[in-house]
Amino acid sequence: MVFCSRIVKPFVTSFSSASNPLLKVGSTFRKPKTFNHPDLVNYAEVTGDYNPLHFDSDFAKGKGFEDRLVHGMLVASLFPCILASHFPGAVYVSQRLQFKLPVYIGDEVVAEVKALNLRESKKRYLAKFSTKCFRDGSLLVIDGEALVMLPTLEIREGPVRSC
Amino acid sequence: MVFCSRIVKPFVTSFSSASNPLLKVGSTFRKPKTFNHPDLVNYAEVTGDYNPLHFDSDFAKGKGFEDRLVHGMLVASLFPCILASHFPGAVYVSQRLQFKLPVYIGDEVVAEVKALNLRESKKRYLAKFSTKCFRDGSLLVIDGEALVMLPTLEIREGPVRSC
Repeated sequence: MVFCSRIVKPFVTSFSSASNPLLKVGSTFRKPKTFNHPDLVNYAEVTGDYNPLHFDSDFAKGKGFEDRLVHGMLVASLFPCILASHFPGAVYVSQRLQFKLPVYIGDEVVAEVKALNLRESKKRYLAKFSTKCFRDGSLLVIDGEALVMLPTLEIREGPVRSC
Repeated sequence: MVFCSRIVKPFVTSFSSASNPLLKVGSTFRKPKTFNHPDLVNYAEVTGDYNPLHFDSDFAKGKGFEDRLVHGMLVASLFPCILASHFPGAVYVSQRLQFKLPVYIGDEVVAEVKALNLRESKKRYLAKFSTKCFRDGSLLVIDGEALVMLPTLEIREGPVRSC
């Protein structure tokens, strides 16, 4: 089952049943996001990561980039945000990230989390997700996988705070 | 060569030469950090990750934890912060993270980044680092590896903004 097959609104999903749907292999969640300069400033203030690639346009261009980059780990934070939004209480076990292409300020990216494998473990669920992020529609900028312990397979819907 | 063999101050290193030292296999950088409630609030505001495990003590205890957890990806952000501090212009290629134990608000953690492998590539350097984070001295809370493209092997020293 694929949720959010079209990106209309963040976290809007469609189901045939009125009750909360259950996560299945193939369930997919997508979240569009455009990072701006204040996002980078706020992220740097929290994490201390003031790499000039993110704040100095000339420096970034001197290193072969088109302009200032969004912190890779800020883009990657979309994955746990998506998972926590749909599964409050989700606990990250592992995350693998490959930063394949740069994300620039103002780029719209779409983070995509897709269930690959589910296993019950002590009344919880160990779920493996592919975690991908795209730019310009289909350009893969981050690839990876996450292993997450879920308290339930029930997917929480409805308005959530924006990632 | 191991830098920061004793944790005195963040990023303080000792070398036999007056000039900037060069990164070698075995070079190690450590950074202590204690996350507090405002850190979590600020991180959640930037990333949108409002998982109740980070903000609701009763919820976290109900899930088997001692108290509220620090976001794993916030703890992991120490790794790129350390690398960017010593190598401005460092570009992340990949990061693998295993979240082995929880980090609670008020815990002092020590992030450790150690060069495992160095390879020159088109006048830049592809460096593999182990990325570990410890709690209570020797308790491994995050394990992993990062692959990073460095503009130079020269290690920047001196005061840097705090991660």
